[in-house]
Amino acid sequence: MGEQRSTASNEEVLARIAWSRLTEPRDRAAGLLLATLGAVEALHWLDRARQPIDRAGALAEVSGIDPEVDAKAWSRAVARWAPRLRDLDPRRELQVITRLGGSVLIPGDPAWPPGLDDLGPEAPHCLWTRGDPALLAMPAVAVVGSRASTAYGNHVSAELVAGLVDGGRAVVSGGAFGIDATAHRATLAVHGTPVAVMAGGLDRFYPAANAAMLTQVAQEGVVVSEAPPGTAPMRQRFLSRNRLIAALAGATVVVEASWRSGALSTAHHALTIGRPLAAVPGPITSAASAGCHRLLREGAECVTAASEVLQLLAPLGSVAEQVRDVPAGLLDDLDQGQAQVLDALPVRAAVDESALVRASGLSQAQVRSALGYLELAGRVRRDGPRWRRAGS
Amino acid sequence: MGEQRSTASNEEVLARIAWSRLTEPRDRAAGLLLATLGAVEALHWLDRARQPIDRAGALAEVSGIDPEVDAKAWSRAVARWAPRLRDLDPRRELQVITRLGGSVLIPGDPAWPPGLDDLGPEAPHCLWTRGDPALLAMPAVAVVGSRASTAYGNHVSAELVAGLVDGGRAVVSGGAFGIDATAHRATLAVHGTPVAVMAGGLDRFYPAANAAMLTQVAQEGVVVSEAPPGTAPMRQRFLSRNRLIAALAGATVVVEASWRSGALSTAHHALTIGRPLAAVPGPITSAASAGCHRLLREGAECVTAASEVLQLLAPLGSVAEQVRDVPAGLLDDLDQGQAQVLDALPVRAAVDESALVRASGLSQAQVRSALGYLELAGRVRRDGPRWRRAGS
Repeated sequence: MGEQRSTASNEEVLARIAWSRLTEPRDRAAGLLLATLGAVEALHWLDRARQPIDRAGALAEVSGIDPEVDAKAWSRAVARWAPRLRDLDPRRELQVITRLGGSVLIPGDPAWPPGLDDLGPEAPHCLWTRGDPALLAMPAVAVVGSRASTAYGNHVSAELVAGLVDGGRAVVSGGAFGIDATAHRATLAVHGTPVAVMAGGLDRFYPAANAAMLTQVAQEGVVVSEAPPGTAPMRQRFLSRNRLIAALAGATVVVEASWRSGALSTAHHALTIGRPLAAVPGPITSAASAGCHRLLREGAECVTAASEVLQLLAPLGSVAEQVRDVPAGLLDDLDQGQAQVLDALPVRAAVDESALVRASGLSQAQVRSALGYLELAGRVRRDGPRWRRAGS
Repeated sequence: MGEQRSTASNEEVLARIAWSRLTEPRDRAAGLLLATLGAVEALHWLDRARQPIDRAGALAEVSGIDPEVDAKAWSRAVARWAPRLRDLDPRRELQVITRLGGSVLIPGDPAWPPGLDDLGPEAPHCLWTRGDPALLAMPAVAVVGSRASTAYGNHVSAELVAGLVDGGRAVVSGGAFGIDATAHRATLAVHGTPVAVMAGGLDRFYPAANAAMLTQVAQEGVVVSEAPPGTAPMRQRFLSRNRLIAALAGATVVVEASWRSGALSTAHHALTIGRPLAAVPGPITSAASAGCHRLLREGAECVTAASEVLQLLAPLGSVAEQVRDVPAGLLDDLDQGQAQVLDALPVRAAVDESALVRASGLSQAQVRSALGYLELAGRVRRDGPRWRRAGS
């Protein structure tokens, strides 16, 4: 994709590559800074902010961006980012990924998956890809689960994946042992579109035992990461990687998960950004299904077949219809902010307040006040710490 | 119990025994007639209504009882009931059950399970019992499921039952093969209180292969039926028997059930009268769990342990607290009918409109109008064809 870009957007690509190197995933200050200044200008700002002589002025410039980042937090952010400026070489990074047959996607690229924008300030700065990035535009379902899967979980994953591919869906997973690998392999077996989301750089596929499979995923589908080549897959990166799996998929299905499985973090991310979450039940005597039953008790949809997963992915038209279903006159009494918050609430899923702040573009105080009104009006209701539409 | 009754209540017992012989279960006209006239007077009425010369007057007497039974329906009811008047011999029936060591309960008796009253006009006219009827006052959980249970289902039932007995609950089931028998046997094994609800008369335990077990249930707990001795257990009686299982229990758990299992009818009855319904998940590859997964998709609570079932049975105090949790001022704006309908709505479960009509004592039109207001006020919400409290 790189060679088709204009000079201006090439500069943007290089700047975002730089930011992908400068920051760890989910650095909200970076997300807010780039959303406000743009990646290129944000680099210039960082250059000023790290010089003692320019610091005060630079901090003053960003003081109003977001109440969650105050002057102290900006100083800490500069202290986090500046040390990595020295070794920065975005052009070389671009060459590395190109040599691997890959490319870099940035927001605004035709292949940029719009679902990532739902992550707000925690969206990745860019997406490193190997394979055909255009496939990221396909509607997709995430199939995730335990590394220590059982024969039951593997069987169920393969059946589910075959049905999802049949239903025209790409299948997103994390490339790990167990359910992830089974999901990728089953997708390849039925000539579907696999999407693997890595926690580390794409120069080395991890875990090594899955490298051959992941190479095939890159041939038939696409492997992506928010980490530049050379990044080691550390524990924290696996957890933050899970939000990309959830955001790249229209729905997430947990097939098998122990009580404290990492797959539950993917499930949590799906709920946070308002995507349907499903879990496959299993024997209650199997520890490998305990996490799934936990999710079912917390409100995940119980699914036993691909058709039931596909039902969760209502086409956009039917969702709009559901929204229109509200009796006339009931929408009229909402003010702008209340209407924005209600619009930001997904039709079926529950989301937390901070997700509504991100999705509505309003302040936390505005969102909270709007939620208070909407609750009294019976339009929304609490669901544990989250909120959902009253009818859902 | 019979020997302690007064002459008046003895007459009532005999009349209710007569009605239990005259009618099939769930004869709503009979239920409405007895609720209005009392069992004794209702027999006199039937005697008049079956004589051509008195019929018009008798029909006029009951014309206003309930809009669902018009003059034609009363005529049909008389035509159903009168043919059985000839062979009626309630005293002999009472002797039979007494000879079996059993007794007959009627509404108002100290041991009459108040949960049965939730069945409204479909409540049984009397309850034939073998064993200690006082045990029916214990808080109970119904554990039901497939006749064709698997080793998994049997294992899970036994575990669940042990935990429920440990939690001080009697265990209600239907005496059938499979999950029912496992539930009874497991209850006996841990010296709990088994309650078996039969579809036929208590002179012969059915199925015969379970007779020894049911005899033991009558020794350690209680076996009940709404059918007088000598009644054959026909298919329709099994289905109507299921409502008694649901009504005798504070919650119903379906352990294993095929897609069209009779256990789903018990589940349906539990929902209809507003009792919590739970289902145990199992492998999605097992047809014996397909009905459970169906229930989970339709809103049953996913349970994997007895503790989770016990959580569904909030003690009365905590339920009252939840109701009190409504912000002050929000209850004040309700009129009498609205408050009655809201009170009739269970705290956690969804119920259908007809259950609310029965529970609130209001007309369908009044209930419908109250629901409309409560929905707009955000106090209740639709749940498919049913209704639930907004916060639940």
